[in-house]
Amino acid sequence: MSKRPLIVVTNDDSYAAKGLKVLSGIMRKLGDVIVISTEHPMSGKSHSVTLQIPLRLNLINDEPGYKEYRTNGTPVDAVKLIKHSILSDETPDLLVSGINHGSNASINIIYSGTMGAVLEGCIDGIPSIGYSICDYSPDADFSHIEESLEIISSKVLKDGLPKGVALNVNFPKKSDEKIKGIKVVRQAEARWVEEFEERTDPYRRKYYWMGGHFVNGDGREDTDEKALHDNFTSVVPVNVDFTAHDAVDKLKF
Amino acid sequence: MSKRPLIVVTNDDSYAAKGLKVLSGIMRKLGDVIVISTEHPMSGKSHSVTLQIPLRLNLINDEPGYKEYRTNGTPVDAVKLIKHSILSDETPDLLVSGINHGSNASINIIYSGTMGAVLEGCIDGIPSIGYSICDYSPDADFSHIEESLEIISSKVLKDGLPKGVALNVNFPKKSDEKIKGIKVVRQAEARWVEEFEERTDPYRRKYYWMGGHFVNGDGREDTDEKALHDNFTSVVPVNVDFTAHDAVDKLKF
Repeated sequence: MSKRPLIVVTNDDSYAAKGLKVLSGIMRKLGDVIVISTEHPMSGKSHSVTLQIPLRLNLINDEPGYKEYRTNGTPVDAVKLIKHSILSDETPDLLVSGINHGSNASINIIYSGTMGAVLEGCIDGIPSIGYSICDYSPDADFSHIEESLEIISSKVLKDGLPKGVALNVNFPKKSDEKIKGIKVVRQAEARWVEEFEERTDPYRRKYYWMGGHFVNGDGREDTDEKALHDNFTSVVPVNVDFTAHDAVDKLKF
Repeated sequence: MSKRPLIVVTNDDSYAAKGLKVLSGIMRKLGDVIVISTEHPMSGKSHSVTLQIPLRLNLINDEPGYKEYRTNGTPVDAVKLIKHSILSDETPDLLVSGINHGSNASINIIYSGTMGAVLEGCIDGIPSIGYSICDYSPDADFSHIEESLEIISSKVLKDGLPKGVALNVNFPKKSDEKIKGIKVVRQAEARWVEEFEERTDPYRRKYYWMGGHFVNGDGREDTDEKALHDNFTSVVPVNVDFTAHDAVDKLKF
């Protein structure tokens, strides 16, 4: 490949998702692109890796400055396959994941396959950004966020990110009002309250579909949920250190 | 159930794992126990939830002070099912997950189904502890850690944990030397370097098995990896806030 920046694009909504096509289209303006997407939807797959079955990796398109692969694995598997089986010695200049159809703000990050890929890139030292839009529709309108996405990506390509830090970027759904700007904020403390739907199959055995509603009890001004509510794009710098540092010195056994 | 503490026990190595049996045995000394395990091994399933297929939930044992369920879901699904479909109004006094066959120290936490369940308990406000042993053998020897595990669990049952904090506890493998004690430490900065094994199937298509080796580049004294190396039990207080707080004020877009 040429000396243009090398950008890896992945997602968790599968190769067929509109968000992936929009994202790879924007990235092709910024550099050489390798897309690796999943064969099937992998929403909710978090940081899972595939250990029980072997992984497949298929090259779908190979053009100058653009390659497209698909895998039966998870988004995290996809990033590991890129690193090992496709690039080996070369390190990408940027990894972007998305654009996810649906919010990954607040606690959604922990369930998200989109953000799983981003955090895996971060572990590997690649500047990594997850993009999501607060619109679950497969036909979501991305026209109002394309410029902003390009600005954020270009800046990270140019300046990098602090060591061990990745970005969780969420865009408001398209509305009549123009997005007010970009806010760098913290992850809101919120959670899902489950409401499983119980059904009975033709053999009289019960089964359950997971549902739920989102509860945000975080009233602070500087959170991703507040920024999105106010029609700003939210950017949360994230890391993979789970340590509750305040508690380390307080706990005794 | 009686007024004894209510303890939920889960894991990611399936109902057949020795570590689960040891853990539920110890917990039955401390309170009334509900075990919910997975039908199949769920190592590496992280915080994933099941959205594409319906969930099953089967009651396997029902004795005074002891119930045992199995699910086809992930460890996080298991915790959500317990909360919604089994307990509804009641909140457990403690959730324990494990004892995992293999370390969940350092970056392993992000891939771990065992710790996925723990973090889900934490999101729900349940004092939650993950227990793992640095021994991958299905027949791992747990005799040297049972007393310590009971002490940690009893203390958390009595005192609770700080809001939003759970524990990631890892025990050294049994050796000739007695474990030196318990250290409350931080998560070491380490990562897995993948080494995929490429094979060819009978139809001449390539496939890959994920392998890898663990690289710890963290020389600090106060990490879980250092404690385990020195034959201490490591306790890392963990939370689900991914925000890199130091970076919030530094980044501008």
